[in-house]
Amino acid sequence: MTQSRDYGSDTHKERASAWFGQLRDELCAALEAIEDDVTGPNRTSGGAPGSFERTAWERPDEDGKSGGGGVMSVIYGRVFEKGGVNVSTVEGEFSEEFSARIPGAEKDPGFWASGISVVIHPCSPLTPAAHMNTRMIVTTQGWFGGGGDMTPVFPDDQETETFHAAYRSACDSFDPDFYPKFKKWCDEYFYLPHRDERRGVGGIFFDELNTGDWEADFAFTQAVGRAFVEVYPKLVRAKMDADWTDEQRRQQLIKRGRYVEFNLLYDRGTMFGLKTGGNTEAILMSMPPEVIWP
Amino acid sequence: MTQSRDYGSDTHKERASAWFGQLRDELCAALEAIEDDVTGPNRTSGGAPGSFERTAWERPDEDGKSGGGGVMSVIYGRVFEKGGVNVSTVEGEFSEEFSARIPGAEKDPGFWASGISVVIHPCSPLTPAAHMNTRMIVTTQGWFGGGGDMTPVFPDDQETETFHAAYRSACDSFDPDFYPKFKKWCDEYFYLPHRDERRGVGGIFFDELNTGDWEADFAFTQAVGRAFVEVYPKLVRAKMDADWTDEQRRQQLIKRGRYVEFNLLYDRGTMFGLKTGGNTEAILMSMPPEVIWP
Repeated sequence: MTQSRDYGSDTHKERASAWFGQLRDELCAALEAIEDDVTGPNRTSGGAPGSFERTAWERPDEDGKSGGGGVMSVIYGRVFEKGGVNVSTVEGEFSEEFSARIPGAEKDPGFWASGISVVIHPCSPLTPAAHMNTRMIVTTQGWFGGGGDMTPVFPDDQETETFHAAYRSACDSFDPDFYPKFKKWCDEYFYLPHRDERRGVGGIFFDELNTGDWEADFAFTQAVGRAFVEVYPKLVRAKMDADWTDEQRRQQLIKRGRYVEFNLLYDRGTMFGLKTGGNTEAILMSMPPEVIWP
Repeated sequence: MTQSRDYGSDTHKERASAWFGQLRDELCAALEAIEDDVTGPNRTSGGAPGSFERTAWERPDEDGKSGGGGVMSVIYGRVFEKGGVNVSTVEGEFSEEFSARIPGAEKDPGFWASGISVVIHPCSPLTPAAHMNTRMIVTTQGWFGGGGDMTPVFPDDQETETFHAAYRSACDSFDPDFYPKFKKWCDEYFYLPHRDERRGVGGIFFDELNTGDWEADFAFTQAVGRAFVEVYPKLVRAKMDADWTDEQRRQQLIKRGRYVEFNLLYDRGTMFGLKTGGNTEAILMSMPPEVIWP
């Protein structure tokens, strides 16, 4: 990773965290519009459209070295059985265990991190669950990371292609190597070795992105966020009015169990959050609302 | 840990694995008798008594160094929504990562392990879930480990006391230090730091038990297994005919989420099993049948 002198300056931090908030607003609005527009089966929330409720949280400051907090936005609706959109901006010091493993934190454990994290579990087994996350992290170095991926219960080639095309397009305008590299990274990351199964149909995943040009890296991170806001609601709308069977629902609840297994056994973000004093409710907002392990 | 010359001999291995099979038979019979005797609310399996179904599995032997397998016994009943009783006897070589952390495996990665593992999720939120496990492990050293603990949704002092009394009695006939030591170990082990919650009301937990006297250690391990077979069915019978409310059921499904979080985030046995080529279905039989994260 190249380290340029002002990569991760205060101005950069402010602009990044403001963007994550803006992206949250745009995404929540797009999902709430879906709640209003659905005409198909309404089996939850008494058939009323859901809307996001926001809860702010602060990072506990036991040692005088921590700070920041976040806002958790949660929806329980008739299309989205449970959806969480979290933004947070925190700073503090990594534990020794973490410092050794994080770029630029080996000698100075201080860090700053801001990001948005999204997990959507739709009611309908025909509508894919989705995850999106982008973040900026600053230690003595600085970088962006994130991505987005989709987890349908019943994969559909056209839907998968549309999802990937959105990310390919976002990537290609920055670097022709990004999409193939980040798609592969995503496939390798969202994999359950104990099941020999992929979590879903992939998307992109990137981390420790620092080309030396903060503006370009920030613009790319914004493009990744925008791609999700553009493509995912469109894919939900395509199937949200279709009815489903009890057996399809059952398959969905089983598939959600794999999602839980991945997040608790392997996901770095979950572990990172739980071990760095993150907000447990916000982190585990990714858990599906209802799951079976038959 | 003291190492006596013949601790973990072939005869010891045979006697231990035979015992784990016998304990499985006794426990399954006790639980099936409960399925027959219940007169209270029958909301599952069409109201018919459940019985255990057995499935044998073999450990994959990709490198010619692995062997063994196990038998998974599963019940879906009207008292026990899902219960799993697994016995297994496996041998092979630990990975480098594991060898460094396991007594007696630092220089020679070969191991043999046999054990029984039990997880019971009752239908009724008034009836506690329970876990029991005992095992014998042989590397260049040898030892026993295990314990049992209970996870009620609505803790009940008398029930908790009866459960603990059974283990205290099993412990005290061997060593007056065992119960306080193993109870504390259990309390510390079955704890969710990210929630600052205990998983349940405890029980006992012990590991790397090798007093130098294999006969005594084996007898103690048998006593721990017998204590569970005697006390848990009695506690289930005390409440199994009582009806419950939808709200109590909801609390149960939430509590089960904590169980999942513990097992996937912290449980050594789950990790050990998944990383040493154990049978995924058998290991994840511990997952509750239905869970919510509202």
